[in-house]
Amino acid sequence: MRVIVDAMGSDNAPGPDVEGAIRAARRHGCGLLLVGREDAVRAEMAKHDVSGLSIEVAHASQVVEMHEHPAQAVREKVDASVVVGMRLLRDGAGDAFVSAGNSGGVLASALVGAGRIGRIKGIQRPAISTVLPHLHGHSFMLDIGANADARPEWLVQFGIMGAVYAEKVLGITTPRVGLLSNGEEDTKGNAVVQEAHSLLRQSDLNFCGNVEGKDITQGKADVIVSDGFAGNVAIKTAEGTASMILTILKREIKARPLASLGALLAKPAFKVAAKTLDYREYGGGPLLGVDGVVIIAHGRSDALAMENAVRVALEAAERDVVGTIREYIGGGQG
Amino acid sequence: MRVIVDAMGSDNAPGPDVEGAIRAARRHGCGLLLVGREDAVRAEMAKHDVSGLSIEVAHASQVVEMHEHPAQAVREKVDASVVVGMRLLRDGAGDAFVSAGNSGGVLASALVGAGRIGRIKGIQRPAISTVLPHLHGHSFMLDIGANADARPEWLVQFGIMGAVYAEKVLGITTPRVGLLSNGEEDTKGNAVVQEAHSLLRQSDLNFCGNVEGKDITQGKADVIVSDGFAGNVAIKTAEGTASMILTILKREIKARPLASLGALLAKPAFKVAAKTLDYREYGGGPLLGVDGVVIIAHGRSDALAMENAVRVALEAAERDVVGTIREYIGGGQG
Repeated sequence: MRVIVDAMGSDNAPGPDVEGAIRAARRHGCGLLLVGREDAVRAEMAKHDVSGLSIEVAHASQVVEMHEHPAQAVREKVDASVVVGMRLLRDGAGDAFVSAGNSGGVLASALVGAGRIGRIKGIQRPAISTVLPHLHGHSFMLDIGANADARPEWLVQFGIMGAVYAEKVLGITTPRVGLLSNGEEDTKGNAVVQEAHSLLRQSDLNFCGNVEGKDITQGKADVIVSDGFAGNVAIKTAEGTASMILTILKREIKARPLASLGALLAKPAFKVAAKTLDYREYGGGPLLGVDGVVIIAHGRSDALAMENAVRVALEAAERDVVGTIREYIGGGQG
Repeated sequence: MRVIVDAMGSDNAPGPDVEGAIRAARRHGCGLLLVGREDAVRAEMAKHDVSGLSIEVAHASQVVEMHEHPAQAVREKVDASVVVGMRLLRDGAGDAFVSAGNSGGVLASALVGAGRIGRIKGIQRPAISTVLPHLHGHSFMLDIGANADARPEWLVQFGIMGAVYAEKVLGITTPRVGLLSNGEEDTKGNAVVQEAHSLLRQSDLNFCGNVEGKDITQGKADVIVSDGFAGNVAIKTAEGTASMILTILKREIKARPLASLGALLAKPAFKVAAKTLDYREYGGGPLLGVDGVVIIAHGRSDALAMENAVRVALEAAERDVVGTIREYIGGGQG
């Protein structure tokens, strides 16, 4: 297996991107194709032991910046790392593509421009996804940003794609699929969610009904389906809340000498809790529905996050997530 | 001032409802009109010192249950505590009404049925609101559940009502009004949010742009405007995340004797942090846009939460939130 990695994606690229990819190559025995400014990428590679690893570099002179309009940028910047990486995936130069760049840019480069891989036949809209921790394990949420407005039928397809991913990669048999809503009752939801609820009930999925914000962390569902607006609000609110709680705790502990001593003794417990909540452990979420394995890593990714994102890419490629989605959807509803 | 309290509202009613109201009456020197099954209410009152307090009981034989369809229930149950309480508010028997009952039931009883108080003239839709903690203080979010689908103009009115409340009751001068969205950039959002963004830009409000889920806890805005769907997802996700983190921390600490000792030493710091996050401290959120002061307390309210909800009701009544909203909106846009 060979993973194509956008070396210019993360906020601190190319350092974490290159280091994380090298670590993953060492640990999982995969080949790498690093895409970005060749001199910068090789300079980063020189900082690490790459002996015995199969690593190639594909030069890309441009980068899609955070402030740019994604679709316009990937059309204009034909030599952007995310465009070149996607093109290499399409042309079979690797089995998966990982980028910690602007998620809108990754999505756009999959759908338009010189690297376009397009959607799986029958899929109406791709979805960006993420793994989320809950009290008893992990759930998988999609869409978290590709489609701010969604149609009910799209949400059903998100449910199918999420179930495939949860089963194939997360190892959850017959995953429970829930629909993010503003109440548990079947009648709750905005107009789109109410219609999606009916469609999901009629589907072959193991649909467990509506899931409220507080149910996410209870692990009520294995797959949580949402439009990209509410899904994005949910994950960013969870992230912000976790960060606030830890900040307040630290602040209050620091203000008290005895509490500081106590916190030192309790540190191993804090560490385990922090690890559970650490987005870097999950590496990245697949962009599902496009015709290839594409993993979007967090923009703030460090080397650990990138290493895990490459692992996720390998798992998705090895377990043929794209082929399985194609089987379930293929041709039927296009 | 006299506050009308739905004694049958909370999950454990009438105990916490009656006790909290009595505590508030003692602390803030207000009168009370407790609404509910008279024998049950008086039995609860007998458990507390009510000497010198001005407390009356209004009998209401029915209760709107959590599983009921709110609008239908308040139409059919003319003697439900929430309907009777709302009617007493309309008829001038008190200055504000507090209920920890089914929030849909409180909303419905304000708009339809025997207790209907109706909307403030010019207000297109009422909104349910809440106070949220952030790193440096508190913000105020609306709508969190009254309108799962919203029109852009409604969101602008939510901004106006929220700003009035933040200024009058929370004491924030020229509050910054933000719009909940899936990205900071002006172009982010679903179709309704994008249009609301333009309208808010043109308004007289101190509009600070889009607010992401993670900005909520950073205190980027004093007032956060949302439709009732995404707003509900946000607050319940925050609640669920906070609860999950504390549960995981406790679990990991308990598993380690040394960490348990440490946590004991750090307890005062934990307590302050927990208090910051405790919804009970905020008492309840006003139902804004209806023609009277109505406070919806959390269904899981205990006596402390109810006491604070009555305090919030007093503040909103004393500072004439309804009259001020009427001045800003009145007749102009109806």
